[in-house]
Amino acid sequence: MHTIRDKQRLLDRVRRIRGQVEAIERALEAEAGCERVMHQIAGVRGAMAGLMAEVVEDHIRTHLVDPAKHPGALDIEAADELMAVVRTYLK
Amino acid sequence: MHTIRDKQRLLDRVRRIRGQVEAIERALEAEAGCERVMHQIAGVRGAMAGLMAEVVEDHIRTHLVDPAKHPGALDIEAADELMAVVRTYLK
Amino acid sequence: MHTIRDKQRLLDRVRRIRGQVEAIERALEAEAGCERVMHQIAGVRGAMAGLMAEVVEDHIRTHLVDPAKHPGALDIEAADELMAVVRTYLK
Amino acid sequence: MHTIRDKQRLLDRVRRIRGQVEAIERALEAEAGCERVMHQIAGVRGAMAGLMAEVVEDHIRTHLVDPAKHPGALDIEAADELMAVVRTYLK
Repeated sequence: MHTIRDKQRLLDRVRRIRGQVEAIERALEAEAGCERVMHQIAGVRGAMAGLMAEVVEDHIRTHLVDPAKHPGALDIEAADELMAVVRTYLK
Repeated sequence: MHTIRDKQRLLDRVRRIRGQVEAIERALEAEAGCERVMHQIAGVRGAMAGLMAEVVEDHIRTHLVDPAKHPGALDIEAADELMAVVRTYLK
Repeated sequence: MHTIRDKQRLLDRVRRIRGQVEAIERALEAEAGCERVMHQIAGVRGAMAGLMAEVVEDHIRTHLVDPAKHPGALDIEAADELMAVVRTYLK
Repeated sequence: MHTIRDKQRLLDRVRRIRGQVEAIERALEAEAGCERVMHQIAGVRGAMAGLMAEVVEDHIRTHLVDPAKHPGALDIEAADELMAVVRTYLK
């Protein structure tokens, strides 16, 4: 979102998720079993959690403190601890 | 999944989710703010949880007991209690 | 809940959880760091999820179908699939 | 954790949770039904999520930026957005 590289990585993730959602659509149309559809839904949920973790990480690293105005103000260790907790709950 | 009506309802849900995922893709391409993207992701997560709840409900009602072979064997009240708990955790 | 052995296993789990909650209480009283308390809370959440998974499993195996009145009516494979999905979401 | 008032509020929360866990223990000993125990477990999970949200909020407000060394560096609006997302996932 903030650099060309981040944006591309997030777009790649969201396009993979779109592909996974389309696969659920096809499975429903083909009247696949509940088991398969439940696994596919759980897969999208996990992928969405990974996307959210990445966006939250970007948000913490670049928006909580304006690095241009307050260089060095963000406590990196405390930010990493927060990210670790958030990732636990996003799973 | 089991009747034309269920299938259509699930397809409608999954197509709405596809539209929501495409909106995230467009937001990232347009370099929308983290806040907006985080809200969109949380929205898809909620919609996926709703889809899962519906598929799990179908699974409980139609697959745990074969109603043709064992009519009346599924305890409806116990199944409803289970669904209520599952919905709490899917949120 | 249903046999002496199940009951003891569930009680052991819940007593361990009580011990974990008491440890959070002591950490707060001793003004331990946020990091430690966040890890302890995440630990209790995981342990509660494990307890819920076990109770849900008991519920599926023994209450959805009365085995005395409808022997063999519960589709074991479908019940296992359901438990696998529930465990994914309980994590 | 950081002021007498915060510490007391967190201790009150964790003691209520201990009481809820003890109630599960008593319910299991009394061989209460699955339904009741499942509700009690879901209640503890919600209460633990509330406790975590409060500790995470403290952590964001007081540890990500040292307010003594970098006054005004934390973007309050961005911090609030983050908390809103975290609360959605903690539920």
